[in-house]
Parts: sequence; C-alpha cells; structure tokens
Amino acid sequence: MSRRPGKLRLGLSLQHAGYHAAAWRLPEVPRHANLDWQYYLRSAQAAERGKFDMIFFADGVAVRENLDDREVLARTPSVVNLEPLTLLSALATHTRHIGLVGTASTTYNEPYHIARKFASLDHISGGRAAWNLVTSWSLGEARNFGRDTPLDYDSRYARAREFARVVHGLWNSWEDDAFVEDKQSGLFFDPDKLHVLGHQGEHFSVQGPLNLSRTPQGRPLICQAGKSPAGQEIAAESADFVFTADHSIEDGQAYYREVKGRLAQHGRHPGQLLILPGVVPIVGRSEQEAQDKFGRLQELIDPKIGLSLLALLGDLSAYPLDGPLPPIHDYGEMASVARLIEQRARKDNLSIRQLYQAIAASRGHRTLVGSAEQVADDLQAWFEAEAADGFNIAAPYLPGAVDDFVDLVIPELQRRELFRREYEGTTLRQNLGLDYPEHPRSTPTHADH
Amino acid sequence: MSRRPGKLRLGLSLQHAGYHAAAWRLPEVPRHANLDWQYYLRSAQAAERGKFDMIFFADGVAVRENLDDREVLARTPSVVNLEPLTLLSALATHTRHIGLVGTASTTYNEPYHIARKFASLDHISGGRAAWNLVTSWSLGEARNFGRDTPLDYDSRYARAREFARVVHGLWNSWEDDAFVEDKQSGLFFDPDKLHVLGHQGEHFSVQGPLNLSRTPQGRPLICQAGKSPAGQEIAAESADFVFTADHSIEDGQAYYREVKGRLAQHGRHPGQLLILPGVVPIVGRSEQEAQDKFGRLQELIDPKIGLSLLALLGDLSAYPLDGPLPPIHDYGEMASVARLIEQRARKDNLSIRQLYQAIAASRGHRTLVGSAEQVADDLQAWFEAEAADGFNIAAPYLPGAVDDFVDLVIPELQRRELFRREYEGTTLRQNLGLDYPEHPRSTPTHADH
Ligand SMILES: Cc1cc2nc3c(=O)[nH]c(=O)nc-3n(C[C@H](O)[C@H](O)[C@H](O)COP(=O)(O)O)c2cc1C
Ligand SMILES: Cc1cc2nc3c(=O)[nH]c(=O)nc-3n(C[C@H](O)[C@H](O)[C@H](O)COP(=O)(O)O)c2cc1C
Repeated sequence: MSRRPGKLRLGLSLQHAGYHAAAWRLPEVPRHANLDWQYYLRSAQAAERGKFDMIFFADGVAVRENLDDREVLARTPSVVNLEPLTLLSALATHTRHIGLVGTASTTYNEPYHIARKFASLDHISGGRAAWNLVTSWSLGEARNFGRDTPLDYDSRYARAREFARVVHGLWNSWEDDAFVEDKQSGLFFDPDKLHVLGHQGEHFSVQGPLNLSRTPQGRPLICQAGKSPAGQEIAAESADFVFTADHSIEDGQAYYREVKGRLAQHGRHPGQLLILPGVVPIVGRSEQEAQDKFGRLQELIDPKIGLSLLALLGDLSAYPLDGPLPPIHDYGEMASVARLIEQRARKDNLSIRQLYQAIAASRGHRTLVGSAEQVADDLQAWFEAEAADGFNIAAPYLPGAVDDFVDLVIPELQRRELFRREYEGTTLRQNLGLDYPEHPRSTPTHADH
Repeated sequence: MSRRPGKLRLGLSLQHAGYHAAAWRLPEVPRHANLDWQYYLRSAQAAERGKFDMIFFADGVAVRENLDDREVLARTPSVVNLEPLTLLSALATHTRHIGLVGTASTTYNEPYHIARKFASLDHISGGRAAWNLVTSWSLGEARNFGRDTPLDYDSRYARAREFARVVHGLWNSWEDDAFVEDKQSGLFFDPDKLHVLGHQGEHFSVQGPLNLSRTPQGRPLICQAGKSPAGQEIAAESADFVFTADHSIEDGQAYYREVKGRLAQHGRHPGQLLILPGVVPIVGRSEQEAQDKFGRLQELIDPKIGLSLLALLGDLSAYPLDGPLPPIHDYGEMASVARLIEQRARKDNLSIRQLYQAIAASRGHRTLVGSAEQVADDLQAWFEAEAADGFNIAAPYLPGAVDDFVDLVIPELQRRELFRREYEGTTLRQNLGLDYPEHPRSTPTHADH
C-alpha cells in the first residue's frame, strides 16, 4: 500500500432535505427544498469551505418506492428530485474547488450520452466531474424503460462492463493537444490526433468519435458502489473511487483488501482506487448535544414509515408503538433478514418505535452520534486500520449537518494532520491525489489505464 | 389569427464561435471558445440585455461531418461542442429572464430521460426551459447508437410522435399542488394528486410517474423544426414554437399558413404555435460597415471548406478560385440541387470563390447584411405579412454580432413598437404570450392541450 495517500478523502452525499428520512420535517428546512438548486448550493459551498473533496448526488430514474402503498409513499420525500447532471452543472459555476459526482445508470442509458454529458460537465467545471456508475436494481426503473422486470444481475453487469469500456474509449477520441485552432492556416484540429473508436461489442456498437474534446481531468473520474464480485470487478477495472457501506471495521478491512487486491490483474496499483465507506454523522459540541439533535430527528419519523421498515416482521399496526415487539410467528420470504431485525429488538429490549428508529436512521450506513472528537476518533481508526481511504459523509439534514461537520469535525481532523487545510490542485483528480491518465495515442479498445 | 401576439418574438441561436463557418478565425474569438461556458454566457447576457425571448443551442450526438475527408474535417469547428443541457443549466443560474432552448433527439433517447432533464432545467431556471425536438437524420448519429444507417424517415417520425406524447404525460405525473409537505402531519404529498402514466404504446412502455414535480411553466416548452408534413404534424400536435428556414416571404407565408392550419384538428388555436424563421444578421452603423464586416468573414472561409460545399458540382480544385465556374458535365445523384447551385453562379456571374462564399454564409438561413433600419425593415415586412411571429437570430460570430444586434436593431424594433422594452413575465411561456397548461387532472394518455 505504498502509494496510499497520507490524508483522508472526504465526499459529501446530498439528497432530498438530507439523508435522514425525516429531515424535511425539521422546521428550518424550507418547503420544496429538493427542487431548489440554491438549497443545495448552500451545502456545496459549506463543503467547499470545509475543503471537502466532492459532493455526491445519488439518483434513480423512477419513483423507486412501492406505488401501490400510497399511505407510505405519500410520506416519502425521495419521490421527486432534480436530475443530477443539470443540478451539478448549475452548482459547478458557483463553486471553484469541489468535485461534482453524479449518478447515471448503465442499464437505461447509451454510452455516448454518458460520455458526452460527463465530459461536458468536466469542461464546464474546469475538471471536477465524476460519474457514479450504477446498474439500477429497481422494478420502478425497469418499468419506465420498457421492461416488466429489472434486467437480471449478470446481464446488467456484463452490459455495465462493456458500457464503461466504451465510455473510456470515447473520452479518448481526441488527444490532449488535438485542437491547434490555427487561425492563420485555417486548421482547426490536427487530424492525426483524432482517434475513431469503432467499437463493436456484444451490447454496443459505437463508432465515435465523441463530439467533445479530452477534458481537463484527461477524463471525468468514475465512482462505483458495487458490493458483489461483479460490482467489485467493474470498480477494479474502471473506477477511481468506490462508495461502500460496511458496519464493522473488520468488514471494512476485508472489503478494502478484497477490492484493492483486484487491481493488479488490471495493471493498476492500490493507490489508483480509493475506498470511501459511508457514514451519517450527527455532531454536537458535546455528546449530549449530538444525542439531542439525533433524538429530535428520530422523533419526526412517521410511524407509518417506521412500520413499513418493519414490514418483514408482519403487520405490527395493531400493537402499541412504545410497547415491546410481539412474538413473531411467520418470518415470511426473507426470514434471515427478518430474524436479524428481531434479534436487534430482543437484544436491547427495544420498543417497536425504538426498533424502527434504529433502522430508519442508518439506512445502510453507519450513524455516528457524538462530539467532534468522538466522530474524528472513529474516522481515524478506520483510516489507520486500512478499512478506508476516506469517507462518504451522508449529511442527515441540509445544510445544518454540513455546517456542523465543517465547523466541528474538520478542524479536529486538521489538528490531527488527517485532512488538508488547503486544496492541493485545481481538479478533483489532483485533490484526490490520482494520476493524470496519459492518452494511449492509438485507437483505444479498452479502459485507458 | 385573432390571438396573434402584437409584438414579435426573438430567439438567439448560439453555436461554436458563431453561425458563420469561419467565425472561429476572427482575431477576437478566443481559442477553445466552444468549450467555455463563460464565452456563451457573454452572448446570453447580451441577449438578455436586448430582451430576447430565448437562446437556442442546436445539437447532434455525433461528429456529423464526413469522417473520411480529413482535410475538410480538420477545418470544421463544429466537431466538438458542449452538451446543451449541462451548458444551459450553467447559463440558467447567471441569467434571470431569458429562455433556454436545448436540442435532444427522439431517435436516440428514451422519453423518461428527456422528460426529467428538461423538467429539471425548468425548475433550476425558474420556468425558462424548452426542448428542441429533433429526429436526427445523420449517419454519424446512427453509428454511435448501434445502427449502420439512420432510421428511415417514417419510423423516426412515428417514434417521435409517441415520444412527445409520453413526455407530455410524464410531465403531468403530479398536479401543480400535489406537494403539500405538511410537516405537522408528515404528509409529503397528496396521493390523489399523483397520476401514474401507465403508457403502453408501439415504441414505448413507460409506467411513470416522473420523479420530478410539475414545473414552473406547467411543463417545459417544446420547439420543433420539421419541414416535412410529418414534421409539421408533430409541431401542430406537441410544439409551442417552430424554427424554420424559408427564403422568400411568399414561401414563408405559405409555410406559416400551412402549419397554423394544422392546429385546429388538434383542438388548438393559431396563437398557440409561434413560427420563427431563421435569419443571419450582419449589422453595421451603415450598409457599408455591414458589408465590410461581412466581407471580412467571407474572406476567412477556407477554400477547402468552400470547395467541399460545391462538391455536388464535381471536383473543382483544378480551377482558379477567382475564375468562373467551368462547364458542368456530370450533375451526379443530386442533380436538382446541383443545377440550382450552378444557376446561382451563372445568373450573377460569380467566381468559384464568390459562389462558395454565398453558400457558406447562409447555410440554409437568410443572411441579412445592412444597417439597423434595413434589417428591421425586412423583419417587419415578414412579421406584418404573416410569414413569421418572430425570428430565430443566428448570430454569425459571438459575442460581437449579438452586441451589434442588441445595440442597433433592437432599439430600432422598439422604436417601431415591434418589440418589448421590458420582459412581460418571469417564465419563457409568459414572455412568449403562451397560456399556462392546466393539469388535465386525470391520467393523461396524450398531449396536454
Ligand atoms: C453509497 C452508495 C451509493 C449508491 N448510490 C446509488 C445510486 O445513486 N443509484 C443506484 O441506482 N444505486 C446506488 N447504489 C447501489 C450500488 O450501485 C449497488 O447496486 C449496490 O451497492 C449493490 O452492489 P452490487 O450491485 O454489486 O450487488 C449505491 C450504493 C452505495 C453503497
Ligand atoms: C433552425 C433549425 C434548427 C435545427 N436544429 C437541429 C438540431 O439542432 N439538431 C438536429 O438534429 N436537427 C436540427 N434541425 C433539423 C430539423 O429538426 C428537421 O430535421 C429539418 O428541419 C427537416 O425537417 P423534416 O425532418 O420534417 O424533414 C434544425 C432545423 C432548423 C430549420
């Protein structure tokens, strides 16, 4: 791990009114916040003040929740969102340093569009664009794109791998210095520096060239959040950083080793793929203040939403929320998950409300509630144990939780020499400490590294 | 034509360093201008100063020129361009009034993406987004999306019609006031105001709903530049304005009557579809100054580009550029067009250079070279003859030609009470004098008008 960066990397995940399902109900969050680019700008600018590496917008091309359960759906703020590329482009011109990570699906897109849009964002932002490559698991997305069911797992990932190769190839359509723009002679570009892709594959035939030049970062960065072996392989072949969601430091270390171990077979070294687990921090000036902030959010979780999170345990609506979990008789189709949820309640003697609150808060990520020192201790431990190269900070509510992290945790990380005080470069690639990808100088047929 | 607006409407077409093929060679145009969103911002802001209704970016998803003729290709500035949606989003946040028209293809896209991206731009811009619906005629585009040849004409337009209906339907997924966001009760939206599209058609099955709410304009506007009967039908059914390219006022009147005549069968009135022919203005303080500006541009047309425009007449490279057109013996496959070009040379006794200059300048549109009065006279004549509701001004070079139009022609049009002095509304729809589309209030199955 010789090339492992000395400082940890920080991304900030922004969505809806925040990552916490009840964030929109906080009195300080304006109505229709999730349609307002300036609402997100406040968080982006706070993140830039805190020298974050990047902001990240997750996305899906559907209302992915169950359309038939209108009671729960009507209480779900994630049903509408601005589209990430248009939103990031707006934010790009009001920020100077922060990286801009948008999500796009390989299952319901064509590589030419994705190559072009992210390249365009890289030009507009002066080298700060990154693509979060996802393969779209949901039924809702399938049904918006002519399918009855999602594409099966293997087909999705086979398509995604070829998709990423084509995108890499298109990004190398022109060499860095192709555009001579010689006004005197009338030569706009040097024709020897144009490389027509001519890709013919199993899923795509794409002639090229891309009608956009090589970008300030050489090419936009790629992020991938695959957990499965196929997902990890795409990351190892094509990505620059991965978002993950591990719950114990041991699991984090195992994942870290596994993904980094896959790089060599693609001719890459461990420093070329950064691993960023997600955490949801709730920070206070004291642990008590943090707990109070957290409690305020947890209280706002609608019981209908809460009970829907426990649906695997059956219909609990007849039981008092502040009473214990009743005996479960039928564990249903996903018995293993249902039993895990039940165990959690039994172990800590949680009421129904406490149980759904515990599940709602994390939604897959680790929730860290505490003082700046406590949160920094945790991040430092993961970083030093090589369970992480940095973190994807999912802000529970916007922009308050971003401000808290920037004002409280960042200075603490800086004091410990774990985090930058100034941006190192002008592009996201430079700030992340990733090498510039030299142009392969011949018609590329696979990923450019 | 009772509802015909009293003032003419003006769009500004921005591309590369300008509409004129040699614009990039002007000394004042910076290198790599077409990758610089701030270069376009200067023109957008000038247009807003001039109270233009909108700016427009044409687009294709390919290098559409012949890839095999590298000599000509290398002299062609249109090979690389920023992607319109990302560019318009960046410009949106630095302008306040001007409409933002981007191009997207129905042949190489899926309706869900187009509905979402333009809706997102409409939210970001506060109601200024419009979609130029094109069906993509070029071979280069076909080859970037898995095809050997372009989709045939009829299939392209059949797909486009259904595409537009689906997009309209998705834009009506939620009623205007669906998002109650009641923090007290926890109700985010009123489930009775969600309408799931459930479209099942010949080309698309799209379940919906769109994961974005109704937009400030009710829905983004749609523009269409179809010349053929099928193109006109789409415009009549789905568009709010059309870009055209007619050369005589009589042709303009005929087209105007024909398109407006198609509206009634879709239950629409003539004021609901605005017709905007394109013109390329080169304006001076005097006619002579305008001619000088024009001459300076025309001189910069590379002879290789010029001769390529005359390729239908055979290989002329052996003849002196300033000599006459030689006798043509073989008119080739497109004999009718070739004969028209030849007639133009013979009639005015043009040299080879003068002939290609004449063709290069207009590229389908009318070039108007003259003083502000002369240009205004022409526009007024077309407007009053009902050959146009306004114009799509293709600026020959940026930002200079925009400034000239704004500083010279706009005041002249205002003096004649032909053009606004202040924006009437806050959305593009309001400025164009188009009605707000009420939500159909039931699951929409076709266009919302
Ligand atoms: C932090 C994080 C962010 C993710 N963002 C998205 C997203 O925005 N859109 C999406 O469709 N999937 C998203 N995913 C899902 C992943 O792309 C992936 O499908 C998931 O991690 C399971 O991995 P696998 O596909 O290899 O099984 C995200 C996952 C993680 C951990
Ligand atoms: C002013 C104007 C702008 C146009 N812009 C585009 C464009 O950006 N992209 C494109 O593929 N086609 C563009 N077109 C082509 C039209 O969409 C259409 O294909 C053409 O006018 C021929 O009409 P038809 O398709 O009905 O035969 C444009 C046409 C005009 C007149």
